[in-house]
Amino acid sequence: MDLVIAKDYETLSEVTAGIVLEKMLKHRRVNLSLTTGNSPKMAYEILVDKLSKLQMDTSMIHYYNFDEVALKDKQYGLTMSGLKKALYEPIGVAPENIHELTIENYQEIDKKIAQVGGLDLVLMGLGEDGHFCGNMPGYTDFSKETYSIPVIPGDQMYESLQEHLGEEPGDYFVTFGPKTVMAAKHLVLIVNGEHKAEIIKQVIEGPVTEKIPASILMTHPNITVILDEAAAKSLK
Amino acid sequence: MDLVIAKDYETLSEVTAGIVLEKMLKHRRVNLSLTTGNSPKMAYEILVDKLSKLQMDTSMIHYYNFDEVALKDKQYGLTMSGLKKALYEPIGVAPENIHELTIENYQEIDKKIAQVGGLDLVLMGLGEDGHFCGNMPGYTDFSKETYSIPVIPGDQMYESLQEHLGEEPGDYFVTFGPKTVMAAKHLVLIVNGEHKAEIIKQVIEGPVTEKIPASILMTHPNITVILDEAAAKSLK
Amino acid sequence: MDLVIAKDYETLSEVTAGIVLEKMLKHRRVNLSLTTGNSPKMAYEILVDKLSKLQMDTSMIHYYNFDEVALKDKQYGLTMSGLKKALYEPIGVAPENIHELTIENYQEIDKKIAQVGGLDLVLMGLGEDGHFCGNMPGYTDFSKETYSIPVIPGDQMYESLQEHLGEEPGDYFVTFGPKTVMAAKHLVLIVNGEHKAEIIKQVIEGPVTEKIPASILMTHPNITVILDEAAAKSLK
Amino acid sequence: MDLVIAKDYETLSEVTAGIVLEKMLKHRRVNLSLTTGNSPKMAYEILVDKLSKLQMDTSMIHYYNFDEVALKDKQYGLTMSGLKKALYEPIGVAPENIHELTIENYQEIDKKIAQVGGLDLVLMGLGEDGHFCGNMPGYTDFSKETYSIPVIPGDQMYESLQEHLGEEPGDYFVTFGPKTVMAAKHLVLIVNGEHKAEIIKQVIEGPVTEKIPASILMTHPNITVILDEAAAKSLK
Repeated sequence: MDLVIAKDYETLSEVTAGIVLEKMLKHRRVNLSLTTGNSPKMAYEILVDKLSKLQMDTSMIHYYNFDEVALKDKQYGLTMSGLKKALYEPIGVAPENIHELTIENYQEIDKKIAQVGGLDLVLMGLGEDGHFCGNMPGYTDFSKETYSIPVIPGDQMYESLQEHLGEEPGDYFVTFGPKTVMAAKHLVLIVNGEHKAEIIKQVIEGPVTEKIPASILMTHPNITVILDEAAAKSLK
Repeated sequence: MDLVIAKDYETLSEVTAGIVLEKMLKHRRVNLSLTTGNSPKMAYEILVDKLSKLQMDTSMIHYYNFDEVALKDKQYGLTMSGLKKALYEPIGVAPENIHELTIENYQEIDKKIAQVGGLDLVLMGLGEDGHFCGNMPGYTDFSKETYSIPVIPGDQMYESLQEHLGEEPGDYFVTFGPKTVMAAKHLVLIVNGEHKAEIIKQVIEGPVTEKIPASILMTHPNITVILDEAAAKSLK
Repeated sequence: MDLVIAKDYETLSEVTAGIVLEKMLKHRRVNLSLTTGNSPKMAYEILVDKLSKLQMDTSMIHYYNFDEVALKDKQYGLTMSGLKKALYEPIGVAPENIHELTIENYQEIDKKIAQVGGLDLVLMGLGEDGHFCGNMPGYTDFSKETYSIPVIPGDQMYESLQEHLGEEPGDYFVTFGPKTVMAAKHLVLIVNGEHKAEIIKQVIEGPVTEKIPASILMTHPNITVILDEAAAKSLK
Repeated sequence: MDLVIAKDYETLSEVTAGIVLEKMLKHRRVNLSLTTGNSPKMAYEILVDKLSKLQMDTSMIHYYNFDEVALKDKQYGLTMSGLKKALYEPIGVAPENIHELTIENYQEIDKKIAQVGGLDLVLMGLGEDGHFCGNMPGYTDFSKETYSIPVIPGDQMYESLQEHLGEEPGDYFVTFGPKTVMAAKHLVLIVNGEHKAEIIKQVIEGPVTEKIPASILMTHPNITVILDEAAAKSLK
């Protein structure tokens, strides 16, 4: 595990943007799976700015979102909406290079990813409950590839999503499973803020357990963990 | 996970020998960690025969044993004795290329392996109880690097080793931990015989759990699992 | 450069088959470009035999022939005919996994290979004149990607092909250029027989020059050169 | 070949610094060979600034200079002096991680690099005469590993160095040869300024020839060429 502690969120974001950009430079098919949410926000701003100043062939860069929460009466789910806004639209990704994960295709996606050579990078954040991608405590099985979790009004998952989203969820939630993520060539986990200090300590220093889903990631042979100092404050 | 089912033990052994040989061909430092025991016997015979017919620079191939059970009043432990006899002596490995794992150096070995670029290959067998290297059910912690297990007369581990060895164990047992093994670039797991059919089924199809230590290996991005048909007979 | 000298042609063939098989085991898209001709004959026999004893998912292995000489009034050219007979038919490659190089598609092939992630392996023989793939002395430009050479009755190339084929060539000859081959992740060059001793000596020990086309291959960061003792006899 | 054209020198420098930093993050031995001179100046300033804001284990990063021009009556040659000032001292590289290339050790360096696993990165600039590292037109042999060029007062090389240095050269000039550089896993070539526009055009679009030494680099399977717009202005 490669661990790097950045002085601040800006430095964390620059390092993260640099890693993503380095993958993008390859003049062959590259398969990226990038997180949405708050942690990567500045990294994407930096990336958008950098790419606006670079001429290169980006036609072979493909994007796979690693989870999706359907939103009631909306065309796109939470993840795709976030990625389109933060990254795909600003940098002008061609529609055929965006591979949406849906309730219709999730059972085929591991096979499809293998058929295009595997994922070159999965960039992830960490939930305060230890989740990564859509692998939540209480729902995580380390042996699973991509799976769906039913979202049924009245269930705990429905309510938890409703609270998290601030709006009504649609009827499904799909996510790359631990095996899907672990099969990628390079993993990057970015964690910032003091409110994540306790959970990242458990992830890095504690047991590998489905109760702390991201703990499995620490066993990947090529993972880079990037923290800011606030997130790192409880580490030994 | 790359799964291949060989018609018989001979074919399994040929494929295994071919993978090990392919690593050996590289004209740069190569770090190998190879199992002893029954499963690789024929693979090593094939390898010894092949290497006797090949001229190449083998001076940059280094060997790291992944576990060691001390034997009472013996210079070398179980693993080193087995590897010397089956492989190192027949192919003439220089002493400085053999990196013995001992009770004295086990706490430094993960660092030392990183300092030489990491392991290129770990070749392992599977125990009927699901163990890999020296990671036994009841003793395995997925978050550990190389560790030792005390071997004290009267304890369960002492008795279990005594039975397994048919002689008295020495006073320590050291092994690469799950994190050490998972950090390698390529893992190969070879399993043969009908008596292993049930456990490999659990390893491949069951949960990732410390109760079946080898189950974690299934999440490595570059693992090759080679079975003979007898071992594969219970797979879905 | 990884150099290995095999005692005899059989050993050379076993090592070669082992390397090709190792690539085939990967459970993700693999792109192979394999030679036809005499040098790999026994390696393919071994490979066909081995694969008949192995169950594995071969659906993601793709084949790209690296050159083609059209044959007059024949559906397939020299290379495709040879590969179908020696390898594709015996091991049952699905038609959609065979990517034929033709006069119609050769200008697009470098781009297409990049779009599928690049070549994992190019297995080549060596001509007594130092050619590799279809890169002949007098026609080779190290800076070229895939190109065609016109084959016009009366021209030197026509006559040379006619003699080599023992039949009338068709009207084109296409080949991966040096840049195409050098862009692959792993190159393997197999050379056997005393009649190749002088040219392989020049390739390995002499200057890098378009007059000895294969000399450029010696600068690839990941090339394995496998000789039998007869071919190696003039080496320093 | 991965080609990227940066809007300006600052962007070129940021991308370059990002690539070098990405290699440094690996928690295993990493072998870097970095250029001195004007082109990387700002990249190193960025790198020094970034590293001052990052906590990470840098003890396994090793540095190999790829050429050296001895300076009369000076302890360090041109390259080592430049690297110490621009990079090693500001970031505090431990002396044992700096592997100086000298007239005493140059004949062993290719072997030594192989023994530590090979070079992970060679970062180079381009001379207006097409040279890379110390491979000058008129002196370059693509088949060479590390070599020395005698520097004898009165000779052309002496005078050319004297003019370039603005001071008296010492008695040797050593450089990684083309084979040494091509054996590395990743090459990065950075070129900025309108005065380099003509030569980079020849390097990228022209023949592979010892008269334009850097032309060989275009055949490496993993090279990133980073230009600013001024340097790129003559490209097709």
